[in-house]
Amino acid sequence: MSSTAGKTITCKAAVCWGAGEPLKIEEVEVAPPQAHEVRIHILHTGICHTDEYTRSGKDPEGLFPVILGHEGGGIVESVGEGVTNVAPGDHVVPLYTAECRECKFCKSGKTNLCGKVRTTQGQGLMPDSTSRFTCKGQKIHHFMGTSTFSKYTVVADVSVVAVNKAAPLEKVCLLGCGITTAWGAVVKQQGIKGSNVAVFGCGAIGLGVISTASIVGATRIIAVDTNPNKEGWATKMGATEFVNPAKLPEGKRIQDHLVEITDGGLDFTFDATGNVHVMRAALEACHKGWGVSTVIGVAAAGQEISTRPFQLVTGRTWRGSAFGGVKGRTELPGLVEDYLQGNLKIDEYVTHHRKFEEINEGFDDMHAGDCIRCVVDMS
Amino acid sequence: MSSTAGKTITCKAAVCWGAGEPLKIEEVEVAPPQAHEVRIHILHTGICHTDEYTRSGKDPEGLFPVILGHEGGGIVESVGEGVTNVAPGDHVVPLYTAECRECKFCKSGKTNLCGKVRTTQGQGLMPDSTSRFTCKGQKIHHFMGTSTFSKYTVVADVSVVAVNKAAPLEKVCLLGCGITTAWGAVVKQQGIKGSNVAVFGCGAIGLGVISTASIVGATRIIAVDTNPNKEGWATKMGATEFVNPAKLPEGKRIQDHLVEITDGGLDFTFDATGNVHVMRAALEACHKGWGVSTVIGVAAAGQEISTRPFQLVTGRTWRGSAFGGVKGRTELPGLVEDYLQGNLKIDEYVTHHRKFEEINEGFDDMHAGDCIRCVVDMS
Repeated sequence: MSSTAGKTITCKAAVCWGAGEPLKIEEVEVAPPQAHEVRIHILHTGICHTDEYTRSGKDPEGLFPVILGHEGGGIVESVGEGVTNVAPGDHVVPLYTAECRECKFCKSGKTNLCGKVRTTQGQGLMPDSTSRFTCKGQKIHHFMGTSTFSKYTVVADVSVVAVNKAAPLEKVCLLGCGITTAWGAVVKQQGIKGSNVAVFGCGAIGLGVISTASIVGATRIIAVDTNPNKEGWATKMGATEFVNPAKLPEGKRIQDHLVEITDGGLDFTFDATGNVHVMRAALEACHKGWGVSTVIGVAAAGQEISTRPFQLVTGRTWRGSAFGGVKGRTELPGLVEDYLQGNLKIDEYVTHHRKFEEINEGFDDMHAGDCIRCVVDMS
Repeated sequence: MSSTAGKTITCKAAVCWGAGEPLKIEEVEVAPPQAHEVRIHILHTGICHTDEYTRSGKDPEGLFPVILGHEGGGIVESVGEGVTNVAPGDHVVPLYTAECRECKFCKSGKTNLCGKVRTTQGQGLMPDSTSRFTCKGQKIHHFMGTSTFSKYTVVADVSVVAVNKAAPLEKVCLLGCGITTAWGAVVKQQGIKGSNVAVFGCGAIGLGVISTASIVGATRIIAVDTNPNKEGWATKMGATEFVNPAKLPEGKRIQDHLVEITDGGLDFTFDATGNVHVMRAALEACHKGWGVSTVIGVAAAGQEISTRPFQLVTGRTWRGSAFGGVKGRTELPGLVEDYLQGNLKIDEYVTHHRKFEEINEGFDDMHAGDCIRCVVDMS
């Protein structure tokens, strides 16, 4: 039992006080975990576009003030009553997609979208509808049930998984979102082996899709990105071709080009951009009769995807995936083992490191074309 | 060998001379079948909304003059060189979705959308790019590779299937489109047994979906139609509930109502309306995490479906089906056997009969709310 167990911890956290404001490192009070809650000492966290989406104010459901961050790695400091799945000292990854194993969703065997803490998580609160964070006497919202931009955070026990201590937390923190999302989107989709695949967008998610498709045995993997600097990255991760839509002849649509060079279209396409126009192109680049397009990217509020229904009637399927369809508590430990055995790339994605004090610069890094993932070292 | 084999046959056909015009019964010349072609004496034909769509001029790809009709039953009069799958005297159903068993599509094992005659069929021509129909010295276009609104028609051998002679052609002609489309949309979809299903639109296709879902073992089958007279029909076919979207409280969307009464949404939904707004409602009525919505209806030209991509990312799948995903030559004989053994409803759909001379009245029947299918007797 740590000496801080049961007591409020005062520590540094990056607070976003309002929509569009930069993060500010503040002293916050982190209350002890209540029943079925876990307090984690966060050591490393990635920065993801979803953090920026809420920070920027574009997310209409964004709540402020808030402690962002959802790609973390840390060590359990203490646990509340009734917690059995992790213990103090465990190395853990917080999960923004919980897994309670009791709700209709978890028991269905068809989805990873657990319903247990969904409502309060969306309200920026713990399951008892209160917050564990206070700063200058003010309640601070939780974010995605994880809030990893704090040296200490509190999460529901269904929202955390212990992983092998042999794995460096500065790497496996990325399994909290991007890499797992990409991995699952491919692995949970039947039929990728021997097929042709196009991946739209070569950020961390897109590159993860490329890498996983390569490992799974896709024959042809076409990476699509308007940033020519991504070609090297895509190739390194396993893409067999790179297409830059910006370099097509005037008026030539990317979907038409892809259908032409693949004799009818792709067996599988993945959108990893969050751009609704790209999502349409990804669907329409699919082969008639059997092509399947998966939306991974998160679109801005209010935006809609559209296509002619003929695209579906003639045999294309439009689907999506959240956190790659992965059940975090059940599957993340295996992914960590895969990483330790050299069967899952993580190190390759970490292009930038930042100290906690430089977290805003980490957001700037993300917007630069040469950054795949920036990992913030909290210590 | 019939006495007409190898000769041009002069017979009556319903010709549509131009977009929006009524059909006109004319004397037409039907040339003998060329190699890999089959001439059929059509005895009965259904009238389907797709015929009306082209007749009305709304179909931008419609070609005139044309002999419409794609839901026929008849007897092979003669065959061209190299035809092995049917012989004179066979009872047959023409297939607007061909099955060549040789093309990339047929060999894929993933789709029924054969590519063999697709291009010329779309041009209103036989595979050698010519027409077999002449009227008053003018070339008349074929339609959907079938043109069943003629006492004699010529089709490609890959576009016709022989069926058990014990089955009445005035009934099994409906397997040429509507009933097969509905049957396949359900049967080819895994997981219907024990699930809850909503069917939007209670025309022939929608009723066929309801009937098949009932046979397959769906637990709850909600029929949705704005025509209150369809409730009796839907119930007769196996619906467990009927919802009239027009009778919901002001401002209440059908998808929200369905999600409420099903504790989260449907496992499967089917659009059998062709209305793109209904297609969206059908998708959004699906259960988060696993709901699958199938578009069956054909939308008007230029119309698009849309939704928030969040609907897909949170686990709903949007797909479609043409001719129910059924491979006509391989599967229609079995459907006829099912019908003969009482395991597939067909008789129930035939609410109206018309003589060939009354075919325009048959189109009027279709627009009346009390008509499911009108069968035209050609003799």
